[in-house]
Amino acid sequence: MAPPMKVYGWAVSPWMARALVCLEEAGADYEIVPMSRCGGDHRRPEHLAKNPFGEIPVLEDGDLTLYQSRAIARYVLRKLKPELLREGDLEGSAMVDAWMEVEAHHMEPALWPIIRHSIIGQYVGRDRDHQAVIDENLDRLRKVLPAYEARLSVCKYLAGDVISAADLCHFGFMRYFMATEYAGLVHAYPHVKAWWDALLARPSVQKVMAGMPPDFGYASGNIP
Amino acid sequence: MAPPMKVYGWAVSPWMARALVCLEEAGADYEIVPMSRCGGDHRRPEHLAKNPFGEIPVLEDGDLTLYQSRAIARYVLRKLKPELLREGDLEGSAMVDAWMEVEAHHMEPALWPIIRHSIIGQYVGRDRDHQAVIDENLDRLRKVLPAYEARLSVCKYLAGDVISAADLCHFGFMRYFMATEYAGLVHAYPHVKAWWDALLARPSVQKVMAGMPPDFGYASGNIP
Repeated sequence: MAPPMKVYGWAVSPWMARALVCLEEAGADYEIVPMSRCGGDHRRPEHLAKNPFGEIPVLEDGDLTLYQSRAIARYVLRKLKPELLREGDLEGSAMVDAWMEVEAHHMEPALWPIIRHSIIGQYVGRDRDHQAVIDENLDRLRKVLPAYEARLSVCKYLAGDVISAADLCHFGFMRYFMATEYAGLVHAYPHVKAWWDALLARPSVQKVMAGMPPDFGYASGNIP
Repeated sequence: MAPPMKVYGWAVSPWMARALVCLEEAGADYEIVPMSRCGGDHRRPEHLAKNPFGEIPVLEDGDLTLYQSRAIARYVLRKLKPELLREGDLEGSAMVDAWMEVEAHHMEPALWPIIRHSIIGQYVGRDRDHQAVIDENLDRLRKVLPAYEARLSVCKYLAGDVISAADLCHFGFMRYFMATEYAGLVHAYPHVKAWWDALLARPSVQKVMAGMPPDFGYASGNIP
């Protein structure tokens, strides 16, 4: 039997969550190798040898070392659950790719500054203009959400009526955004809200979310 | 015979170039449907019906309408030249994915502000702090290029010794960066320089580059 895959990182990370949800959905045999962000583990030579960009997660599977959370997601699904990438279906895989790109270039870039400035900012000290950054990105989000609503009005999930990698890749950042005071923005779009609820109901998502306190562990002082 | 694919957009765009180089490499039968950025074609209802995010390029292939340049790149190659995605090779495709993600999240985000503030800024009026933005992104680039040099020291292209989608996806932004006064940053890394020269030598790249004047057409007033 092949040894389990290893995932290096800290479980509260929304990027880590992208990999973990896909590993769970794929039914992969894996173990987390916990690292400390506060301790600077990602800047140590042994980690930089695995990922020269000093980021997490990193996946090891046998001789393969892989970084970039979306590349890890694709690899794990291609190996163990290729239907979540619509492998072999040209139009289906195009829809998965398009909505993975929308997540990467529209959703995450809007959500992350809101999360960083509204959740993490409470604990690590706020920039003078933190509300301006939040507001600017709420505006970006207000422009993006109608396209999601329109899409999710014609199909239950982003790449069709069955879940795919495109939906799963949204989980990590959505999880924290929905813990902010701005979650109502999503509740205002009934199809987006129903899609998010469907994601939340998945055992894979519930398991990964158990390691993601809404404050990243700051209130309890349990910060990785 | 199937009708040619249609690509909507303006040829000087580095995002458009990502799609066009892949179409050329794939030997696709396609035509460009030119749009005017200055004229605001991307904000018109007929374009928003194709892409709700109001961006280019958009690809039409029969009944399929597709946006996001990297999703278009993947679709075209998957359909016509799947070996450039290393389809069927788990580790190979993982390397293609990883370096497409590195391009998306490290390279393009560093190159684009430099290009915008140093080339376009000459013609459209500069921000007061344009040099600070350029310098900040040159610093990002200085952190990223050593990882490219290390990678390209062990293989000729980013995903191995043969060209792949990962290399092709770099072309559009690299083309303009190499037209700035900061191109020496790349020349300082011999393996990155050799890789760039190998890209430049490709007929696909030369054909697409013919539509990409180094100043985006500003000096001649021939702006799309």
